[in-house]
Amino acid sequence: MTDATTGADAPTSLQSVSDAEGVTAAAGFRAAGATAGLKASGTPDVALVVNDGPQAAVAAVFTSNRAQAHPVIWSRQVVGDGIARAVFLNSGGANCFTGAFGFQTTHMTAEAVGESLGIGAGDVVVCSTGLIGRGDQTFRDHVLHGVALTTDALSETGGPDAAAAIMTTDTRAKQASVSEDGWTVGGMAKGAGMLAPGLATMLVVITTDALLTSDELDQALRAATRVTFDRVDSDGCMSTNDTVVLMSSGASGVTPEVGDFQEALTVVCADLARQLQQDAEGASHDIAIHVVNAANEDDAVTVGRSVARNNLFKAAVFGNDPNWGRVLAAIGTTDAEFDPYAVDVSMNGVRVCHAGAPDRPIDEVDLTPRDTDVLIDLGVGPYSATILTNDLTHDYVHENSAYSS
Amino acid sequence: MTDATTGADAPTSLQSVSDAEGVTAAAGFRAAGATAGLKASGTPDVALVVNDGPQAAVAAVFTSNRAQAHPVIWSRQVVGDGIARAVFLNSGGANCFTGAFGFQTTHMTAEAVGESLGIGAGDVVVCSTGLIGRGDQTFRDHVLHGVALTTDALSETGGPDAAAAIMTTDTRAKQASVSEDGWTVGGMAKGAGMLAPGLATMLVVITTDALLTSDELDQALRAATRVTFDRVDSDGCMSTNDTVVLMSSGASGVTPEVGDFQEALTVVCADLARQLQQDAEGASHDIAIHVVNAANEDDAVTVGRSVARNNLFKAAVFGNDPNWGRVLAAIGTTDAEFDPYAVDVSMNGVRVCHAGAPDRPIDEVDLTPRDTDVLIDLGVGPYSATILTNDLTHDYVHENSAYSS
Repeated sequence: MTDATTGADAPTSLQSVSDAEGVTAAAGFRAAGATAGLKASGTPDVALVVNDGPQAAVAAVFTSNRAQAHPVIWSRQVVGDGIARAVFLNSGGANCFTGAFGFQTTHMTAEAVGESLGIGAGDVVVCSTGLIGRGDQTFRDHVLHGVALTTDALSETGGPDAAAAIMTTDTRAKQASVSEDGWTVGGMAKGAGMLAPGLATMLVVITTDALLTSDELDQALRAATRVTFDRVDSDGCMSTNDTVVLMSSGASGVTPEVGDFQEALTVVCADLARQLQQDAEGASHDIAIHVVNAANEDDAVTVGRSVARNNLFKAAVFGNDPNWGRVLAAIGTTDAEFDPYAVDVSMNGVRVCHAGAPDRPIDEVDLTPRDTDVLIDLGVGPYSATILTNDLTHDYVHENSAYSS
Repeated sequence: MTDATTGADAPTSLQSVSDAEGVTAAAGFRAAGATAGLKASGTPDVALVVNDGPQAAVAAVFTSNRAQAHPVIWSRQVVGDGIARAVFLNSGGANCFTGAFGFQTTHMTAEAVGESLGIGAGDVVVCSTGLIGRGDQTFRDHVLHGVALTTDALSETGGPDAAAAIMTTDTRAKQASVSEDGWTVGGMAKGAGMLAPGLATMLVVITTDALLTSDELDQALRAATRVTFDRVDSDGCMSTNDTVVLMSSGASGVTPEVGDFQEALTVVCADLARQLQQDAEGASHDIAIHVVNAANEDDAVTVGRSVARNNLFKAAVFGNDPNWGRVLAAIGTTDAEFDPYAVDVSMNGVRVCHAGAPDRPIDEVDLTPRDTDVLIDLGVGPYSATILTNDLTHDYVHENSAYSS
């Protein structure tokens, strides 16, 4: 993960990121994954992460979609007091737009977890992912069965099992962890998208044994997600269930500098975000859109996002066509500060457009590698940002026209 | 064309629309199409429409993209005084981001047309469509050759030839005309998109022999495009070259009521808009998204557009999957006034979601017909609007990854 991947405001740390462990990398946590029968495929579909303390500080960010799934509505309340002791997750059903019965299911799930662990239901975060509108009696039965299965299987090395159990259309489990002087941050993610918007629901659980307050966790989490998950934009669509939860056990007994913690957290988030991009449904290119020399950071993000959401540009990249005209047509729709006829565009290191006119011949651009860089130089200021996206492919259309998970 | 196609504010007239004639349906106009060699396919690629008067009133609307092609920059100036006598159009090159040489080509084109017709270059609108960045000496030579070819071929029945010559990825020419008491409005269109945004460049030329001032034309044109071309949103992308020009010859000698004229003009625009939707690149469904009971018209448009631009929804329709959860997830991203848990969604007449919960079984919905209706009842007010869009298909990806026109 280099600077360039998330822009000028990305972490500059050289921490070594491990993908061997996720939510159980930090001390004070147990986790499990199990198969409760929610998915026709018969693969694991429920996971549990438990914070054994000594403290139980939590912070979370949720989808900004106004259409919010029942688990999101529930979990917002749970984290409101800065305390949570467990996160239960299921794939195989989003439990969104499922009526009062659906909300009751979420509530019953938290109560069942609380009962099994001897904690209050109000300290149990619930996350669901899968088809919207699915949340019938069968769904409820399977989920409650899953609570029993996962509490029985809890282990201090259960992180990888939990990470595998939350996969839906993911082709691989996603974990990342970083250890500093006596404390650790680790996490797991599922989905092929982002907090808002997202290709599919993104669920992320991050744990740390650093001793920090829930306010400090909240501040660090918002700062980290802003420059990582919020800048992955696979297809411009926002899920109803997106959730990122950060729990601190304090088990290390170490209270790091807030800045050091935020940096390590950002490294973990950036690594997970990159894994989400690399596993985006049907994608054949991982595109990093670097916007430089913008008047401010918001402009850089807006310009990058307009390109990331342009279907014509994304289809061109799929076809290995360095169609820079579509880049300029996309950014021309924004109100960012720049002169469309003073913009430079480079693709994979070749400047194909200079000051609003063709520059190097497009046949010098090789778009066959999966990693694709687009550099947009607005030429008006010192700010920059990078948006990560994917191309628009036959497989994307196929997977999303035959969705069932 | 029924009311439902463009919503509550659509024309209620019963005028009979003909597609046999376009820009030469009204008296006082000649047109031509010809092959100048701009396209590798060897099909017609240049068109000319001339207003022989007695008057030469004009109005136009252009792309709102800040990245504007040279012909757009030129033509904005031409129509500024409300007078234009000819429109020259080429396919095979957008002449956008082609530097000073490109603007000079547009200027030379207008001068050549003016010289041929004995009118001022400042009364010649120029429209181009094709690949951005193409505008070299060969392009210029072909375009100027096309001016000679089309002026030689001008005819009072040349409308269909002109309509054929402006096609790019269009599979058929698009014309529509309506005749009222002694006066006529007719037009032609190319493209598979809209004024802003558009799948591909949309060029529209409309002519009338009604005797109206340029201010009256302008008012009627803005009102008509607002509820027609502006509500086709094939893929959320906006072209650099979109242009809609309306010319009045006054040759009928009849001055209709402005309201009657606006209604007839809207019928022509709505018919052409529908033809654009039906010919959208690679589409297999023509989707009409009707938003009803909105608090205001802007909300209705915003909600409809959010669904029209949601790739997950569009891919689901391609797969004949009535995935109403994606509709709700899309509208949840807007700030329109409604309660996500009080919204009804119907697909092809079957209410699949009522008050934020599943209603009729989704297997009652038949999405196999090309015409697809989505009805979103926000339940908060008396306003409505309809957005026309298409599904996201393998063919869309294919055509736009292998673009060359």
